[in-house]
Amino acid sequence: MKKLNRNQRVIGITKILTDNPNKVINLNVFTETFNAAKSSISEDLMIVREVLHSMHMGSIETISGAAGGVKYKCDISEEHKERFIEELCELLKDTNRVVPGNFIYMTDIMYNPQIIQKAGLILASTFKDLEVDYVVTVETKGIPLAYEVAKLLGVQLVIVRRDTKVTEGTTVSINYVSGSSKRIQTMSLAKKAIKKGSKCIFVDDFMKAGGTALGITNLLKEFESELLGIGVLIDNLETPNKLVENYISLVELRGIDEEGSVNVNPSSRVE
Amino acid sequence: MKKLNRNQRVIGITKILTDNPNKVINLNVFTETFNAAKSSISEDLMIVREVLHSMHMGSIETISGAAGGVKYKCDISEEHKERFIEELCELLKDTNRVVPGNFIYMTDIMYNPQIIQKAGLILASTFKDLEVDYVVTVETKGIPLAYEVAKLLGVQLVIVRRDTKVTEGTTVSINYVSGSSKRIQTMSLAKKAIKKGSKCIFVDDFMKAGGTALGITNLLKEFESELLGIGVLIDNLETPNKLVENYISLVELRGIDEEGSVNVNPSSRVE
Repeated sequence: MKKLNRNQRVIGITKILTDNPNKVINLNVFTETFNAAKSSISEDLMIVREVLHSMHMGSIETISGAAGGVKYKCDISEEHKERFIEELCELLKDTNRVVPGNFIYMTDIMYNPQIIQKAGLILASTFKDLEVDYVVTVETKGIPLAYEVAKLLGVQLVIVRRDTKVTEGTTVSINYVSGSSKRIQTMSLAKKAIKKGSKCIFVDDFMKAGGTALGITNLLKEFESELLGIGVLIDNLETPNKLVENYISLVELRGIDEEGSVNVNPSSRVE
Repeated sequence: MKKLNRNQRVIGITKILTDNPNKVINLNVFTETFNAAKSSISEDLMIVREVLHSMHMGSIETISGAAGGVKYKCDISEEHKERFIEELCELLKDTNRVVPGNFIYMTDIMYNPQIIQKAGLILASTFKDLEVDYVVTVETKGIPLAYEVAKLLGVQLVIVRRDTKVTEGTTVSINYVSGSSKRIQTMSLAKKAIKKGSKCIFVDDFMKAGGTALGITNLLKEFESELLGIGVLIDNLETPNKLVENYISLVELRGIDEEGSVNVNPSSRVE
């Protein structure tokens, strides 16, 4: 590659770093890619670090030693976070979302990459200083959000299933009681999916009583692994007594009033 | 925000553009964010465009008119694409993947954000010049890949389900015949999920006979919508007669030989 000047190098460095959150990138990658001296790259990195930090777009950490390098960690400003959560509340308030049975249709939100990217960024920024091995979710609606959080934390996504598949090899299945409907349900996970002694985050779209989250805690025990945190997009406060205590959420839902309006506001559990 | 110099502005511009693939961003966003003149921002954008282009990291298009601005489109170099696909083949060849019934365990690959991000980038780069409204997939394993493609194309993800849920409102269900097992299966989609007259891409993890892809084509007809392209990660050539013709894949699988080795190679259908 032809020699680039500083203006040009910082563009490539920004792209490479932000494409690889939480991954240690050796400085040789940059010196080779940009055909530049280590001292130049170090100065470039200082500029990138300063700009990303001042714009609340993330931090760059230096890891010393033979396996060292630099590592990008995501971030979001308080202002952007608040504005996004308010916009999300407005979206959810739309009365056209109410479907028969007084359910709120929110699939379009859960599968909208622009929304999920920001929601995932907020959750990942909250969990970014924990040492996490896996982000766990249960199929189906929370998968894009959990994937986004896993990507930003630089770890593997694990999807717990309702059924077992022949392509998964040996699976571990547990029964759990759904907190709201009191029905017994099953969740399954391939034995190969999680290594013993791992630390996990559970991410889901919606929390009612927290039965699923409690089920995940118990399932992880079968893998001798631990749940460090729980993050959901929407917390349904119509079920006030939760089976789990520590979790974060972006939005609180208090049901649908008699005029058919959705009662929703920014969560008190967002950090 | 305090005034930034060019070195600093191009970092922020790169981050904002690459975070918003296929979205038109008005130049005022940049002039306001960076407190800079339009002429300076235009020159910044020329530098960003040149570097991203020369590194095959994407292109920046200018859209003129009142609703105009600039738009980032993703890209990947041939060299990176080939290297990634070869690495993916190596990963799949691991004999430890073979589970009873001669299935290949590949869930860890489908849920690995680093892998899925690159696979999604390759598929999205192939489809990036089509005018697409939705990326469609069927639950569960292909969801992260389809999400990544949808994000890079800047469109909504649609997940077709095997069952119907009360929270989805009115749904459309069709029956289709799985091409390999010849069993009748059902797929369902909320009426609200796709607008009439839409153009879609179908993305999935695995193609056997293509029964699911054909089912999606028929389901989309119920929404008066059209399938423009199909992209899968792995094409199983043990089922050579496919029910669909035009699709792209990254990897070709020819089964497991008698020694238990997985026979896999880069696909001839990658573009």
